[in-house]
Amino acid sequence: MEGLQATIQAIVPPDAGWRAQARARLDQLTMPHWALGRLMDLAEELAGMTRSLRPPVVRRAIVTMAGDHGVAAAGVSKYPQAVTAQMVHNFAQGGAGVNALAKVANARVIVVDMGVAADLSDLVASGKIVSKRIGPGTGNIAEGPAMSRKDAVGCLEAGIAVARDLGPATDLFGTGDMGIGNTTPSSAIVALLTGSDVEETTGRGTGVDDAQFRHKVEVISRALTVNRADPNDGVDVLAKLGGFEIGGIAGLILGAASEQQPVLVDGLISTAGALIAQALAPHAAGYMIAAHRSVEQGHRFALAHLGKRPLLDLDLRLGEGTGAALAMPLVEAAARLLTDVTTFGEAAVSQADR
Amino acid sequence: MEGLQATIQAIVPPDAGWRAQARARLDQLTMPHWALGRLMDLAEELAGMTRSLRPPVVRRAIVTMAGDHGVAAAGVSKYPQAVTAQMVHNFAQGGAGVNALAKVANARVIVVDMGVAADLSDLVASGKIVSKRIGPGTGNIAEGPAMSRKDAVGCLEAGIAVARDLGPATDLFGTGDMGIGNTTPSSAIVALLTGSDVEETTGRGTGVDDAQFRHKVEVISRALTVNRADPNDGVDVLAKLGGFEIGGIAGLILGAASEQQPVLVDGLISTAGALIAQALAPHAAGYMIAAHRSVEQGHRFALAHLGKRPLLDLDLRLGEGTGAALAMPLVEAAARLLTDVTTFGEAAVSQADR
Repeated sequence: MEGLQATIQAIVPPDAGWRAQARARLDQLTMPHWALGRLMDLAEELAGMTRSLRPPVVRRAIVTMAGDHGVAAAGVSKYPQAVTAQMVHNFAQGGAGVNALAKVANARVIVVDMGVAADLSDLVASGKIVSKRIGPGTGNIAEGPAMSRKDAVGCLEAGIAVARDLGPATDLFGTGDMGIGNTTPSSAIVALLTGSDVEETTGRGTGVDDAQFRHKVEVISRALTVNRADPNDGVDVLAKLGGFEIGGIAGLILGAASEQQPVLVDGLISTAGALIAQALAPHAAGYMIAAHRSVEQGHRFALAHLGKRPLLDLDLRLGEGTGAALAMPLVEAAARLLTDVTTFGEAAVSQADR
Repeated sequence: MEGLQATIQAIVPPDAGWRAQARARLDQLTMPHWALGRLMDLAEELAGMTRSLRPPVVRRAIVTMAGDHGVAAAGVSKYPQAVTAQMVHNFAQGGAGVNALAKVANARVIVVDMGVAADLSDLVASGKIVSKRIGPGTGNIAEGPAMSRKDAVGCLEAGIAVARDLGPATDLFGTGDMGIGNTTPSSAIVALLTGSDVEETTGRGTGVDDAQFRHKVEVISRALTVNRADPNDGVDVLAKLGGFEIGGIAGLILGAASEQQPVLVDGLISTAGALIAQALAPHAAGYMIAAHRSVEQGHRFALAHLGKRPLLDLDLRLGEGTGAALAMPLVEAAARLLTDVTTFGEAAVSQADR
């Protein structure tokens, strides 16, 4: 059931017939034609994903995947690696940005240890986080692969399992990440899969200065040269450039897409996961909703490659699933256009006269 | 209490001290510095408006002001004037776009008849709408003033009264409008108060074609020439170029600002009202939050004149308060950054090491 290949094969495109039915209703709403613009586009897309003119969006889950990165040793972040585990504790205690914004979205936050370099067993035992632990952080991609091919499949299948576990009680997923150093593998994945220059896909992460930025570009370039990942093989890209949490996010998206459930994709790291999901199953992109455009400049290349326009553009660069949480009310709003707004016929409002 | 001059004199700028206190806390949140970008800017602004590190935003009201326009006779809209009243009925029945989106925002919708060219007394009697009726639609601004100076003051004081009535049970206001033809006076007001060309501030409204667009530009140009409103006198601008609902919106903003309550300003028509409020009381702009950037091209000139960056950019052009409703969860999210997110010290998370 959770096998990667079976999941990929189960992913079919959103349904054009349901989209057309939704469009026919949206065309008749008591407002000038398509006057709610991109919210109406989204309503149409939701109908196609969910095969419904009443797309369910009430039960919401933000899945925040955490993992550590060997490349952190190369000095690509301003923060020590210990912050990954510290922030997982912060998520578990409800004190982080994603917890606050999830309350606004009326969403659950599910924290998954995909491979943090610390013992989080207390949090697992108390049910505060889920363990899908692959190992204590990835290898340093500036020197070799992030993980074995077997572990890459393991990450993806772990993410699929999370989607399957949550799916029956979830209408709308959001992705999130935590992992010190993870803009580095993400920018590498974006450069490789979009065919863009490393300088263009590399951003300042948590806030490095000019010299640190040049160093980060060098590290990413080295990671690409050393590993020679095959851009036509999503599993190879994940194994070579890595990120356990990036693999988990890719798997979550595949699992949701296979069940025809919409997924709000957060920022750069989540979108790197989304690119891997797309590489493995191109139709998976049909179930993705781009939550926002991050400050991280690689993000725009990734979004363009997915063919997505983000809903929000608020200079965010936190991750955790914060952008996905912020966009959830917009998805509810889109769904309500189909269910709550009357048509001209229903309301006896005059239509345009020419 | 509701006198225009007294209200204007009561409007003081947001408080720099509370802003500074908010910034000091936001600087210490468990995230890379200012990693939630414009949401953090907004949190700081809310603290300055409300004089609080716990800005209240729970009780929300969208005030949708309706009025008719004599200039509709000049053929500037695709829709017949009767639609204004029909849509007020639709609001009262809960079937319009703003009703659907207000549910997402957990906001009340208060519909105010500022001067619709129809008998709405049934809706007033049943308590479904509020009457602050000035008259059965404005004069045709292509031929003369929209209203008398006395009526302009009346519109503004009506809006102030609505803000005063709702204020004790409201933390966050949103503005909205309904009025067939009202992009025409709005574009005229924006052109006059921002000093922009009419061609640049005129949009397609509910969807006019090229010939209709050229006609609309001519009508607006004529309105400006015929009326010669004084851009330094907000009451004169309102009287000459009008819109009872635009005056009501301006008054609502002034009333909220005088009570140091934040107001989400919706699209072009609401922002025309905001410009009049700013002309009357420059500090009122400190309590305005720009909800979104409309498709209507005059809107960007108006926002620039107010010095506001909009939160959303979703190709909306409906009005009613729909953009304000969509932005309300973002305002809640900003407030929650101050109240719900722990600082580095509180959470024992390591800070950046350089």
